[in-house]
Amino acid sequence: MFPERTLPKEIIEAFSEIDVPNISDAMDRLGISGALSHIKAVIPYSRICGQAFTVHFAPSGIIKGTVGDYIDDILPGEVVVLDNNGREDCAVWGDIVSIYAARRGIAGTLIDGVCRDIDIIRERNYPVFSKGTYMVSGRDRVYADRVGGTVSIAGIQVNPGDLICGDGNGVVAIPFEHADEVLKTALEIEAMEKEIIEKLNAGMSFIEASRQS
Amino acid sequence: MFPERTLPKEIIEAFSEIDVPNISDAMDRLGISGALSHIKAVIPYSRICGQAFTVHFAPSGIIKGTVGDYIDDILPGEVVVLDNNGREDCAVWGDIVSIYAARRGIAGTLIDGVCRDIDIIRERNYPVFSKGTYMVSGRDRVYADRVGGTVSIAGIQVNPGDLICGDGNGVVAIPFEHADEVLKTALEIEAMEKEIIEKLNAGMSFIEASRQS
Amino acid sequence: MFPERTLPKEIIEAFSEIDVPNISDAMDRLGISGALSHIKAVIPYSRICGQAFTVHFAPSGIIKGTVGDYIDDILPGEVVVLDNNGREDCAVWGDIVSIYAARRGIAGTLIDGVCRDIDIIRERNYPVFSKGTYMVSGRDRVYADRVGGTVSIAGIQVNPGDLICGDGNGVVAIPFEHADEVLKTALEIEAMEKEIIEKLNAGMSFIEASRQS
Repeated sequence: MFPERTLPKEIIEAFSEIDVPNISDAMDRLGISGALSHIKAVIPYSRICGQAFTVHFAPSGIIKGTVGDYIDDILPGEVVVLDNNGREDCAVWGDIVSIYAARRGIAGTLIDGVCRDIDIIRERNYPVFSKGTYMVSGRDRVYADRVGGTVSIAGIQVNPGDLICGDGNGVVAIPFEHADEVLKTALEIEAMEKEIIEKLNAGMSFIEASRQS
Repeated sequence: MFPERTLPKEIIEAFSEIDVPNISDAMDRLGISGALSHIKAVIPYSRICGQAFTVHFAPSGIIKGTVGDYIDDILPGEVVVLDNNGREDCAVWGDIVSIYAARRGIAGTLIDGVCRDIDIIRERNYPVFSKGTYMVSGRDRVYADRVGGTVSIAGIQVNPGDLICGDGNGVVAIPFEHADEVLKTALEIEAMEKEIIEKLNAGMSFIEASRQS
Repeated sequence: MFPERTLPKEIIEAFSEIDVPNISDAMDRLGISGALSHIKAVIPYSRICGQAFTVHFAPSGIIKGTVGDYIDDILPGEVVVLDNNGREDCAVWGDIVSIYAARRGIAGTLIDGVCRDIDIIRERNYPVFSKGTYMVSGRDRVYADRVGGTVSIAGIQVNPGDLICGDGNGVVAIPFEHADEVLKTALEIEAMEKEIIEKLNAGMSFIEASRQS
């Protein structure tokens, strides 16, 4: 992570308590794209929130790499963002890295691709978001060719330090530069939503409750 | 709902106790199509049963609409059937409508498209069947352009008052006109199936048990 | 099953205790293909392990067949392997066969296609691995035209007596001829993995722990 792209702890904590649909609505209102389609929580209802530590994968060939070469460089609280070009035929995250990442306080893993060893992932309560699971290893199929650069997740550009927020509804990537305004807007949307729910609970019709807000 | 298309309560209750595969088999036997492919319970193992209240969505443009304009018109016990043309890029059902629908005794929501806010859906035990979940709002992307008309769900025609029955295996739409005969045939199939299971439990071989029925 | 293709009980039991990713890694190392893509446990986290009893399905037409004609021939401990050519529009496995198979001690069912009646499958704890679930019956749509022959599951050749192993990560088919060497290699991989985890738990960095092994 570049130190000049570190968000204050309070910002990340505030985001972690907002439902992802409200963050998505805030991004809509501000005209910022960042919705990651077809990427889901491996363990239903888990949540992820943290700044991106990016890794790009390329096919193995004459050049090969070792899985996990980058893992000691990730800081606690960061989200490992693995761009495996959407490949579903081999996993770039598994049991040993999950155990190690969980123990080191890494916030979770986001993959444009698949993971394996979901029993360990579930047992450790380590949040992983991916296109699915598959038992085949990435070893000798792909290798991490770039760490800390710009990557593509579900067709969205993700840069180191961007904020990754996911829950049961899906995942969004919020550009570092826009974190403040997205948070402010998402909190407003959340407050407005609470007000509508209170009005409905007080017996108002749906149209009345929605219009007054 | 058109009053002349209201089914007796007993018919709907009888359907709600039959497993969907048996209803599907009855429709097969009678030559009635109504199987909705790729639509699943958002909360595994939830069940849905009720008459359709139909809504069609169209892309927003110069003309926009407000989400939820139709919701006060749905009667308790009805199933909201939302035809969003199979789109998976924006949700046409979420938390506020789920809370409101659950409180008003609406039987559930069926979407040719996606929903969001699954934590609320799960918490309220409100049955939603859809192609999946996604956090992006339908607001300013689509709007309800037709209420109470003929819609298409997974390529099957659904009319107001048609009966929607879903469980962990999937969802079927039973044309209002055929509800009686489908029920009669499904009950026969269910009885025959119970008989086979009893014979198997009594030690008969599979072929013997199946042939005698 | 051909008697000359029966694996010793101890081999199957040993496989049943190894996680599928480790078996997959052993097959990688030995250059044996057998990973079955897009086939998942119908009930999350269930496991399957046993030798294949193969059945091939073909479209019904002038010739029709009866579902379940083959089921009395399957031996306890075997896995029923149903090649429905990947079709997702009709189920070739359901409640009656699940109840009967579970009672007879059949080890589970693997389908290149879909199943139905997941409530019964869950209730009986009977392992089924498939491309998904759908409520439409295979009756009069497909029939079992070949029992005990070579079949294709997710593009992989499966022969009677091949070993089928599945867990939450996916399923592999291990050719009968290679079962011994795959087991030996998988046990080595498992031991090595345990060693790495112990080293990590003892405070070693990821690179150190991985290199020493």
